[in-house]
Amino acid sequence: MLALRNALRPVAIQTTRRWAHNIPSFSHLNAVTEEDLAHFHKILAPTSILSTLPPNSTSTDDLASYNEDWMGKYHGQANTVLRPRTTQQVSEIVKWCAKRRIGIVPQGGNTGLVGGGISLQKEIVLSLGAMSNVRSFDPVSGILVADAGCVLESLSEYIAPHNHIMPLDLGAKGSCQIGGNISTNAGGLRLLRYGSLHGTVLGLEVVLPDGTILDQLSTLRKDNTGYDLKQLFIGGEGTLGIVTGVSILTPPAPQASNNVFLALPNFNNVLPLYQTVKRQLGEIMSAFEYIDRTAYDMGISHGLGPILDAGEVGDSQCFVLVETSGGNQTHDEEKLNGLLESLLSAEQPLINTGVLSQSPSQFASIWAFREGLTECCQKEGKPYKYDVSVPLADFQKVVDAIRERMISKGLYGDHAISKVMGYGHVGDGNLHMNVIAKHGYRPELEEALEPYIYEIVASHKGSVSAEHGIGSMKTHALHYSKSDVSIEWMRKIKQVFDPLNIMNPGKVLP
Amino acid sequence: MLALRNALRPVAIQTTRRWAHNIPSFSHLNAVTEEDLAHFHKILAPTSILSTLPPNSTSTDDLASYNEDWMGKYHGQANTVLRPRTTQQVSEIVKWCAKRRIGIVPQGGNTGLVGGGISLQKEIVLSLGAMSNVRSFDPVSGILVADAGCVLESLSEYIAPHNHIMPLDLGAKGSCQIGGNISTNAGGLRLLRYGSLHGTVLGLEVVLPDGTILDQLSTLRKDNTGYDLKQLFIGGEGTLGIVTGVSILTPPAPQASNNVFLALPNFNNVLPLYQTVKRQLGEIMSAFEYIDRTAYDMGISHGLGPILDAGEVGDSQCFVLVETSGGNQTHDEEKLNGLLESLLSAEQPLINTGVLSQSPSQFASIWAFREGLTECCQKEGKPYKYDVSVPLADFQKVVDAIRERMISKGLYGDHAISKVMGYGHVGDGNLHMNVIAKHGYRPELEEALEPYIYEIVASHKGSVSAEHGIGSMKTHALHYSKSDVSIEWMRKIKQVFDPLNIMNPGKVLP
Repeated sequence: MLALRNALRPVAIQTTRRWAHNIPSFSHLNAVTEEDLAHFHKILAPTSILSTLPPNSTSTDDLASYNEDWMGKYHGQANTVLRPRTTQQVSEIVKWCAKRRIGIVPQGGNTGLVGGGISLQKEIVLSLGAMSNVRSFDPVSGILVADAGCVLESLSEYIAPHNHIMPLDLGAKGSCQIGGNISTNAGGLRLLRYGSLHGTVLGLEVVLPDGTILDQLSTLRKDNTGYDLKQLFIGGEGTLGIVTGVSILTPPAPQASNNVFLALPNFNNVLPLYQTVKRQLGEIMSAFEYIDRTAYDMGISHGLGPILDAGEVGDSQCFVLVETSGGNQTHDEEKLNGLLESLLSAEQPLINTGVLSQSPSQFASIWAFREGLTECCQKEGKPYKYDVSVPLADFQKVVDAIRERMISKGLYGDHAISKVMGYGHVGDGNLHMNVIAKHGYRPELEEALEPYIYEIVASHKGSVSAEHGIGSMKTHALHYSKSDVSIEWMRKIKQVFDPLNIMNPGKVLP
Repeated sequence: MLALRNALRPVAIQTTRRWAHNIPSFSHLNAVTEEDLAHFHKILAPTSILSTLPPNSTSTDDLASYNEDWMGKYHGQANTVLRPRTTQQVSEIVKWCAKRRIGIVPQGGNTGLVGGGISLQKEIVLSLGAMSNVRSFDPVSGILVADAGCVLESLSEYIAPHNHIMPLDLGAKGSCQIGGNISTNAGGLRLLRYGSLHGTVLGLEVVLPDGTILDQLSTLRKDNTGYDLKQLFIGGEGTLGIVTGVSILTPPAPQASNNVFLALPNFNNVLPLYQTVKRQLGEIMSAFEYIDRTAYDMGISHGLGPILDAGEVGDSQCFVLVETSGGNQTHDEEKLNGLLESLLSAEQPLINTGVLSQSPSQFASIWAFREGLTECCQKEGKPYKYDVSVPLADFQKVVDAIRERMISKGLYGDHAISKVMGYGHVGDGNLHMNVIAKHGYRPELEEALEPYIYEIVASHKGSVSAEHGIGSMKTHALHYSKSDVSIEWMRKIKQVFDPLNIMNPGKVLP
């Protein structure tokens, strides 16, 4: 079920125009030469090196899977890909690159959405994929230590027999690697329940931009001995060093899952409902997803559902999906039934109607509605997609402001923007906005949307990138969510770790 | 109940000898002069300044509560204490001190255990206690924004009517301040359930050592826009900047609490039991506390309990206290009863006997046993106390190794070390070791214990300070838990934030 849910996570859209604008020049860096290749051959086995340079002169096609992201949006320029098998090899590669001023792009599963793992100029790609061993798992504490190149789903499968789950789950789990997850501070579907990687990652092993191995691969939940340096690499997007090993706390697997789908008179009821659900379900609430009416109607028109009776839905303005994951099916159902009864019998009900899944297939159907929205957007036209965080109370305001902006510009309607809708994770404050260009992307549409959309997110003290990161795509928008002082201090941190600016250059910082 | 439980948390012991050895000389820093005082009077109201210097010449006694820690172990040297009311005032003070090379010791509730908040030479004390306003609380998201000087218990009381609790709780809650909690990365009793501050702190406002205000007071759960700088100040112990404001995620209050007390044949059963309890109680488990037989017998001999029938306890080698905090009393009791039934009816039982609290007073009695141990240690003699983290499987090994060490040195018995015992938070990997010197502290006892105890913790890849921090007390022991590379990089981070070394000098780094 989760696989389906994840496979359809929103995808950020990048026009070719902006991508072209963003490419910086790296005059401080050298291209890889045959001499460099000869040195890499001293460090690595021949099968760990792919290069279009002589003597082996691999074809460009063989590098394509490292040079193109999975959406085909970004087209990298690397002529050499290295696939080390050990941390020591990573260290030796980095030392050579530092000496020779060769740029390095650390790459995990290459499933990013913002061009963070793509070589912009002539940097080599250092793929972690060949470092894919589990180093240890303690079924008592749930602490897992693994190479950075382990695929997220493989780790889930590794610990499943021990009744544990990974604390994060996301659409790309079949390809993405734990090192990349950590380097991008991946959010995903379990954040509401298990918190962010800043809390669940216990230790990291990192090769720094001078080749030094920083071993902080602690397996301790509590350790107050000095600065928590590893935190800088969580979400550092590979610009401060290369994560090669990970220690992470994995939670016990829940024994039961349920969900409900609720129709609400209007947005003003969402937040009181969230409070009520939090109070009544407490520790078993694992998702609280929001869908506005525009998105719901779109789903219905494309054959999703119906989950609720159309008459009972009436003029409900929005919808909420609540999931529980608990340790006891009977208890969880009782809590959910109690919640629904109190909601429906209230004098001034917060909801118009609702349904509780009664079987695994109903559970799947309810999630399929939420998950199917992304695909529906694609069918409606070309969607501009924005992954932002705003305070919960401002969710719908932001969506409405975008729509009004389009109306005021004369760009709302089937001739231009046919739909503006919002859905997302209320619990996380993470709103996915979809702006449908019925007849395709056009510069004047994008100009009407940006930077307006970033400005309005900034005016609500939101984040222009809730979970996707900055990469090379959003460096120009960083200042909407970070003050000049913050960006200045980010630069200082970059400077102290990577004074030569060889580590994933052109990413994160504008 | 929690207040009692907290009030008796273990206290680290510092001999006068080592304290004297640790005091560094700060030849790069200047003492406060009358000219400086005159400048501080331009920034602050007269009531915000305490100084033994003319013209007002406050008495030294008036500074005592800032110069002495609450245990009376550390005796600070500050002649001036400043109590700003705004972040802007903090910034102006710091700017002046940077210009004049005056050391600054940021101080919260002064409840630390490792001398981190005490002026070692002539640094001023900058007390945050007058900055004690709640800035905002959102009862929907549970996000609280507060001045650093807010007392932890006051914040708990502030959000209680909104059905939320603070994600941390500790013994000093009536005095400690949220800014100090964050600067020391306080652990406490709720870490097992709600995770560390690295996950629950959403944003910080920090005055950097040059006086710049770094405003990262985000109220977003998800924000992937660049390096997460705030993490450096969580556990930075005030050496990188002064935390002035805090944004923190507070969880919904649980609706029910229960506990059980179990007697186990031997330590080998503890970890299988922990696994069983985790699986059966799942999300409602909120504490899993370990007590070894030595500690249990000591408790009984001092009149704690008895909770269990002595005959049923038999030769049980250790004991476990499990607490649940859930959303439904009936469900939680059913889960706990089910757990006990399956434990007692197993073919090869993990436990000898156990008791489930049936009333609030029984709940309190069970906790009182665990909480009372610290006081019993004081009655037994002078306890050497060590707050360490080690892998769960090594808990008892470490305790036994210390005892054997004392035996091999001829120092075990009523003439020297009468008891070596361990208890602590299995769930967190946090072991509190107590080594009782029946007739008082003696240098040869300490020499037999240290650095041996740090070496053995290091050999198990443990932490020499699980939750108390480094402060000025443990700088010499930092290298047992951090590699040379890690310490070198900590120094580089310190250098980039505080090149003048004015911010809490002599703390954390050796």
